[in-house]
Amino acid sequence: MTGRTVFFVSDQTGVTAETMGHSLMTQFDGLQFRAVTLPFVSTIDKAEEAVRRINAAALESGLRPVIFGTLVQDELRDVIKGSNALFLDFFEAFVGPLERELGTASSHSAGRAHGISDTVGYAARIDATNYALANDDGSNRDYGRADVILVGVSRSGKTPTCLYLAMQYGVFAANYPLTDDDLESTRLPPGLQPFKNKLFGLRIAPARLQQIRQERRPNSRYASPQQVQFETRAAEAIFQRNGVSTLDTTECSIEEISVRILEATGVERRIRP
Amino acid sequence: MTGRTVFFVSDQTGVTAETMGHSLMTQFDGLQFRAVTLPFVSTIDKAEEAVRRINAAALESGLRPVIFGTLVQDELRDVIKGSNALFLDFFEAFVGPLERELGTASSHSAGRAHGISDTVGYAARIDATNYALANDDGSNRDYGRADVILVGVSRSGKTPTCLYLAMQYGVFAANYPLTDDDLESTRLPPGLQPFKNKLFGLRIAPARLQQIRQERRPNSRYASPQQVQFETRAAEAIFQRNGVSTLDTTECSIEEISVRILEATGVERRIRP
Repeated sequence: MTGRTVFFVSDQTGVTAETMGHSLMTQFDGLQFRAVTLPFVSTIDKAEEAVRRINAAALESGLRPVIFGTLVQDELRDVIKGSNALFLDFFEAFVGPLERELGTASSHSAGRAHGISDTVGYAARIDATNYALANDDGSNRDYGRADVILVGVSRSGKTPTCLYLAMQYGVFAANYPLTDDDLESTRLPPGLQPFKNKLFGLRIAPARLQQIRQERRPNSRYASPQQVQFETRAAEAIFQRNGVSTLDTTECSIEEISVRILEATGVERRIRP
Repeated sequence: MTGRTVFFVSDQTGVTAETMGHSLMTQFDGLQFRAVTLPFVSTIDKAEEAVRRINAAALESGLRPVIFGTLVQDELRDVIKGSNALFLDFFEAFVGPLERELGTASSHSAGRAHGISDTVGYAARIDATNYALANDDGSNRDYGRADVILVGVSRSGKTPTCLYLAMQYGVFAANYPLTDDDLESTRLPPGLQPFKNKLFGLRIAPARLQQIRQERRPNSRYASPQQVQFETRAAEAIFQRNGVSTLDTTECSIEEISVRILEATGVERRIRP
């Protein structure tokens, strides 16, 4: 027995179907399921091929698959409806009520959500990503252009957060790792002083930080309880003394850290949904 | 008049609500709307505050707002329902049919979709992101661990694609920029030869590449039609001569490039929805 299969079927990349399906399936804890994404289902032929795969999964497991769909075109949706599965299509559920409310027909055209057609938003993402890469880990220091500068000890989540802020929201995020010298002085590093209003501190519980560092450099001074205690306390002192807003990242995903930073700082995203 | 406001209301980051709402609103071309995300609406107080903002937007514009919601808890959803708006809630629409199909009640617990609870997936994303950063632009060259190595000329989309593959799918993607020396020889760069089966080429139309480079370094040799023509032709020759699979990225978003690479190469994602 292979368990129930969940299909994500899209005429585009499948990212929206996956996001929506994943959110829903996490509400059903104990269930094991197999996830299959079928992207670019944009022709009748491909839809029929998808139906064959869905029906084969139903036969193999003896359980009807669940399909999360984001199919814009009625003809393709109609083909998928012929499969032996529970089919939840997101466009079908919501386009009707939206058309009535907005008093206009939808275009029913595929490929808009993640197209390159929004060139301004696209350029903002690329520019912000390049900025994050160039201003990572205290390098470059083109802080004049930063929307926010993340400060914290090594492995507190600065780099992935900067990249997520760039790719998802077009926000220019730099990051500065507190060095041993910085931490011993308890003063704000001189390079950061002119940009005090852009700083945002990432905190992390010592036990969690030690675990992360231990995986990375087992039994090093870097991963030792003493060093981790010293660094987290000294960082906290720097944040407090200088009135730097902070977030405890211990229990947060990168998405959550990013959105909480936008909320706390009031930094405006350059890309809006 | 400010136009209609679209709200994304979530007990978590709002990423799912934004993804779903954005997909739908792109089906209504001509309409201008203002987007407002209200994340972390996780208490009755916050839900009531959201209702006040939604109603204020309705009054101000004279148009009922549209709300895309991902509220897991019925009590919070009930509060939002009291607002003067079209409320499309994604959990409300789909949880019922899923419960019936799966024969089990959902947990109705917030904060699962983007939580850190999936620690294996979380570690895979961070590891893959660190790998992409370390193996960007021909540096490091720890190609033995790569799932895929993207090859192309400067500004063909290699770096953002590697980062997206890492953050979204936990895939280890390195990238190698073809240098002038590489391009003049038409042979596969020696450092890539042992990893021929991992290579994937990104192509781009010369006109588009010239435009991108011109924005970056106006009137440089780098952005000249001659240089761009030479590089794109030489890269194409290297790909063809060495049987490297390729994708034309000219009209593709980073999401689409990433998913097409997974499709074409058969590389398995480490993170599944």
